[in-house]
Amino acid sequence: MLNRVRSAVAHLVSSGGAPPPRPKSPDLPNATSAPPAAAPEAPRSPPARAGSGSGAPAKAVEARASFSRPTFLQLSPGGLRRADDHAGRAVQSPPDTGRRLPWSTGYAEVINAGKSRHNEDQACCEVVYVEGRRSVMGVPRDPSRGQGLCFYYWGLFDGHAGGGAAEMASRLLHRHIREQLKDLVEILQDPSPPPLCLPSTPGTPGSSDPSHLVGPQSCWSTQKEVTHESLVVGAIENAFQLMDEQMARERRGHQVEGGCCALVVVYLLGKVYVANAGDSRAIIVRNGEIIPMSREFTPETERQRLQLLGFLKPELLGGEFTHLEFPRRVQPKELGQRMLWGPFPWQRNQSFTSWARLGVGGMAYKKIELEDLRFPLVCGEGKKARVMATIGVTRGLGDHNLKVCSSNLPIKPFLSCFPEVRVYDLTQYEHCPDDVLVLGTDGLWDVTSDCEVAATVDRVLSAYEPNDPSRYTALAQALVLGARGTPRDRGWRLPNNKLGSGDDISVFVIPLGGPGSYS
Amino acid sequence: MLNRVRSAVAHLVSSGGAPPPRPKSPDLPNATSAPPAAAPEAPRSPPARAGSGSGAPAKAVEARASFSRPTFLQLSPGGLRRADDHAGRAVQSPPDTGRRLPWSTGYAEVINAGKSRHNEDQACCEVVYVEGRRSVMGVPRDPSRGQGLCFYYWGLFDGHAGGGAAEMASRLLHRHIREQLKDLVEILQDPSPPPLCLPSTPGTPGSSDPSHLVGPQSCWSTQKEVTHESLVVGAIENAFQLMDEQMARERRGHQVEGGCCALVVVYLLGKVYVANAGDSRAIIVRNGEIIPMSREFTPETERQRLQLLGFLKPELLGGEFTHLEFPRRVQPKELGQRMLWGPFPWQRNQSFTSWARLGVGGMAYKKIELEDLRFPLVCGEGKKARVMATIGVTRGLGDHNLKVCSSNLPIKPFLSCFPEVRVYDLTQYEHCPDDVLVLGTDGLWDVTSDCEVAATVDRVLSAYEPNDPSRYTALAQALVLGARGTPRDRGWRLPNNKLGSGDDISVFVIPLGGPGSYS
Repeated sequence: MLNRVRSAVAHLVSSGGAPPPRPKSPDLPNATSAPPAAAPEAPRSPPARAGSGSGAPAKAVEARASFSRPTFLQLSPGGLRRADDHAGRAVQSPPDTGRRLPWSTGYAEVINAGKSRHNEDQACCEVVYVEGRRSVMGVPRDPSRGQGLCFYYWGLFDGHAGGGAAEMASRLLHRHIREQLKDLVEILQDPSPPPLCLPSTPGTPGSSDPSHLVGPQSCWSTQKEVTHESLVVGAIENAFQLMDEQMARERRGHQVEGGCCALVVVYLLGKVYVANAGDSRAIIVRNGEIIPMSREFTPETERQRLQLLGFLKPELLGGEFTHLEFPRRVQPKELGQRMLWGPFPWQRNQSFTSWARLGVGGMAYKKIELEDLRFPLVCGEGKKARVMATIGVTRGLGDHNLKVCSSNLPIKPFLSCFPEVRVYDLTQYEHCPDDVLVLGTDGLWDVTSDCEVAATVDRVLSAYEPNDPSRYTALAQALVLGARGTPRDRGWRLPNNKLGSGDDISVFVIPLGGPGSYS
Repeated sequence: MLNRVRSAVAHLVSSGGAPPPRPKSPDLPNATSAPPAAAPEAPRSPPARAGSGSGAPAKAVEARASFSRPTFLQLSPGGLRRADDHAGRAVQSPPDTGRRLPWSTGYAEVINAGKSRHNEDQACCEVVYVEGRRSVMGVPRDPSRGQGLCFYYWGLFDGHAGGGAAEMASRLLHRHIREQLKDLVEILQDPSPPPLCLPSTPGTPGSSDPSHLVGPQSCWSTQKEVTHESLVVGAIENAFQLMDEQMARERRGHQVEGGCCALVVVYLLGKVYVANAGDSRAIIVRNGEIIPMSREFTPETERQRLQLLGFLKPELLGGEFTHLEFPRRVQPKELGQRMLWGPFPWQRNQSFTSWARLGVGGMAYKKIELEDLRFPLVCGEGKKARVMATIGVTRGLGDHNLKVCSSNLPIKPFLSCFPEVRVYDLTQYEHCPDDVLVLGTDGLWDVTSDCEVAATVDRVLSAYEPNDPSRYTALAQALVLGARGTPRDRGWRLPNNKLGSGDDISVFVIPLGGPGSYS
């Protein structure tokens, strides 16, 4: 064990100046190059009603052989080959001649420089119609409220250890969201606060008795109000969980390889919901100002959650890892000496002080014992940080088969499928055509700061007429190109001669005050 | 089970406008009125060397029969009786004629209005000398560094379910802190960064080899620096844990009743460390400005930690409680209906979004099943909030015998003995004699806001000469009197006719720029 994990660390530490990849197929057990399956039909997820570029027919999927790109790219067989070419790394966008994405959304992507066989990012952009369940509230439907709701949906999925999870999520996650929203169609269209209790099912005793619709006013005085917004947040969170559970169920039958980060935007009834699970990032650039709409979930940012879990459930560490933190790896020759152990001050943050004091103890000198030689649960820093010496991202979908290298210890218990959801009220501000929401996988953000993105937004959009719908695609392309760089000196280099991103790069640019049609 | 906890809730909800007490002796099983033991001598905690009013001799403790007050009050038998009189509620302070507390600290206390037989608050104020362990760093001691360190120490302990834990903590916690600091005496006096590794013990192989003193410079480049300050924070945190463990060991032999909140101040080498575990509070009033130096740990502020623990370790809930949150208590007649369940938006805060998404799920409508009728792990609001329908404070010392009412389910796993430690650098600001650190048990803060305390600081101190050392005792007395009120209309009332605090009230006023002697 010690030698194995030590060499794993050596591998992590010895990588050069380029941003090291998150573990991908070559590093992981169980990673196969088997072709991803056609989009599995979720029993609970019938197909979306309306959609621009919704699921391709099964035959088309088969024709693509071992990989696929987003349907809205409308790639020909030749285009698909170019999109899969690591040497050329051609930037892909929807054709200017085709049907535009909703809201004139801009999109661009580029494949990695060779770190994995195919582009493991996936993307989805849909308009989804949600039909309400019949008589959810147990009373006859009010015809004036219409029949259902539409939401706009954008998703970026950054796969690792194979492309299967990202592809499955890109085809199905919005359907899970739709399923979760079905219960809420009537409630969200009713301006009064959501009821706390619904009758069991229409037609059962009590369903016609309006006293069962217990509203806030009839409950305890201590009761607080639930907002429509928080119901939508809950629906999105639960959809992520159901998507993850579906991957667990179907992983064998459909060869759901690896896992993926998921960054999703839902626009519904005037509000933009940004849900992030992983290390992709979303920012709004509004009048030159940067508004962060997500944060990354990595072994470093989630160190306390991971260590607390390891402390409370030591069986998950399998006797191979320790949740204790030493300032560096303990050497066998140091047995019997006393070393400082954490929590260290640089690991403290606000959530730490409120949480991990659960029983982890304060920093002190500790006599080194045999079990302290175990590998740390969280090791490395920055992009090199890993959970159990294996994975560099701590939230996302899939990874049900992920094991510690050369071991049978599952890592999934330490990963969370739940996103953090941030809400932006589009009606609270008069947006101009230059105000955009930018979504990018870590391939963009590894080499591009928020400020550099804002500068590119300004530079590119000012070169186009405000009503030119192609400006957002041009911006997405400029962002991808700026992160990829150009081939020079045996590598992809940025104008400042630093290394460009060798990762898959995918970018959505969503105009907030542009020529889009807001329903 | 249901009836029992339901009546417990009825009790909680039916209490009147006065701030309801935290559960004290009458509410709790295992609470006895046996006399507290004399301060047990901790095997790891030999007596403090220097101290103003350090531990009274055992005979004096016996003479006090069934209760005690802080030694520094120098109470005569008659004074002790007056201090124990619920009817008169006379304010107690150290005699003006006696030896002053260090730094001319002001202190005042008053007994409760009858909620428990004796005053269950305790206090301690000491100057503690820490002798370093011989040759901790494995090299001959540098004689120029002196022999040891002194720290100033103040502690407030708010007991519940008996006075034993508070009394034990007031006698021993500073000794645990001293023990923890012994290893650090040499290190804290050395201006260079603390070593990360110490030799095992003096005289063992390797101890004379300075290469074992691995400093930051010789370690991995990723290594960060440990500060002296963080070592002291760790020492205080670990002292709390050791104090709690000692209570667990000795609870039978010495009848350590109940538990206590602990609010502790350590002044060492220019810095003030404020450690809080419970619902006492410390604020600095500096030039009229309020600087919070602690926050309260209650079922409400720690809801997420508690629910996560209940989720990860459901066996701790004993089949009697649920970690799920409904907007109100579920009724048996609602079985089969669908009710919203949490996490609710009003429970979300920053630490929540980073933590509890571990798998608790998003808000949604859920079909009510039998197990949803279980009592919520956290119930009630504000001062009425309770863990497992029993206790209203979630951090502190003791409570090892605390069980759910009429049940054998232990509550201790949900309580944490770890304090949050905040540091204030006394050298970073030129303090005037009116700048003070105010410590108070919840008896003060239940009826007094931070701003009202700051106003009283200004009013009382301005009535005294800046160099009059009695002004801080006068201020402490004014704060206690202001929270107690005067007997009127069958109760203790404040000038605005609201109810005064019926709780024990204890206050320290520590001058930060007064006539105190800073070592």
